[in-house]
Amino acid sequence: MKIRQTLLMTVLGLAVTLPAVAQFAKPEDAIKYRKNALFVMSQHMGRLGAMAQGRVPYDAKVAADNAAVLEVVSKLPWAAFGEGTDKGDTRAKPEIWKDAAKFKEATDKLNTEMAKLIVAAKSGKADDLKAAFPAAAGSCKNCHDNFRSQ
Amino acid sequence: MKIRQTLLMTVLGLAVTLPAVAQFAKPEDAIKYRKNALFVMSQHMGRLGAMAQGRVPYDAKVAADNAAVLEVVSKLPWAAFGEGTDKGDTRAKPEIWKDAAKFKEATDKLNTEMAKLIVAAKSGKADDLKAAFPAAAGSCKNCHDNFRSQ
Repeated sequence: MKIRQTLLMTVLGLAVTLPAVAQFAKPEDAIKYRKNALFVMSQHMGRLGAMAQGRVPYDAKVAADNAAVLEVVSKLPWAAFGEGTDKGDTRAKPEIWKDAAKFKEATDKLNTEMAKLIVAAKSGKADDLKAAFPAAAGSCKNCHDNFRSQ
Repeated sequence: MKIRQTLLMTVLGLAVTLPAVAQFAKPEDAIKYRKNALFVMSQHMGRLGAMAQGRVPYDAKVAADNAAVLEVVSKLPWAAFGEGTDKGDTRAKPEIWKDAAKFKEATDKLNTEMAKLIVAAKSGKADDLKAAFPAAAGSCKNCHDNFRSQ
């Protein structure tokens, strides 16, 4: 069963959600891990957002430092949406597993926009950060709207 | 008061715990942030530990990948132990703020051992990982024993 599932997922190009599970001792750990990584991510996005939206003065070093954290942390949550992590202390919607292709599309979109934001936030130019931020923040919101219960 | 406190902390070389606070909208966010970063860190330490202790086969890529995450994530929690974050949903002991020099020593020790572990885990040699892991894990435990309520 496990092998057939893995084969099927691989064929469908959805391996992204599977190898993950083995990394966690139990499903609760995966759920906690993704929530925690997402919260850390949100804090660093918030710091870039504050500068992008002019709420705090632009500081090239602060922007680059936050980008360096996001470069690593924004890649972490997705491996923790493995099979069997749909139940428990989570607001993750069943659609993540029912429509895995759509979820993958959403996280791919986030990875793409995040990569652009990271380049922009490391450029030393406030205007680059301002230009890249909305699409990256939008790709976060898109996932929350579609795949997280309110 | 704020300025005097900052001056005093700077004079004492304890600035490490201060600038942090400004990064968080409220103390609860700082507390959540450090707990979440520490949990993410613990998961990646656990994966290195499993290989270091022979519970799972050594895999050079997995070791290096986990080291790359730790390189960023292990630096995050400390900035979130600012003034005013001693109360709330936290097991942090008052000693962190009462004996800030001792806490700084403990986190410095962790940073040092973690840096060694990261080099070892990226070396591609299982023996390097095995040799470096215990001191790094010990520096985690040291902080938990002294600065976290059970």
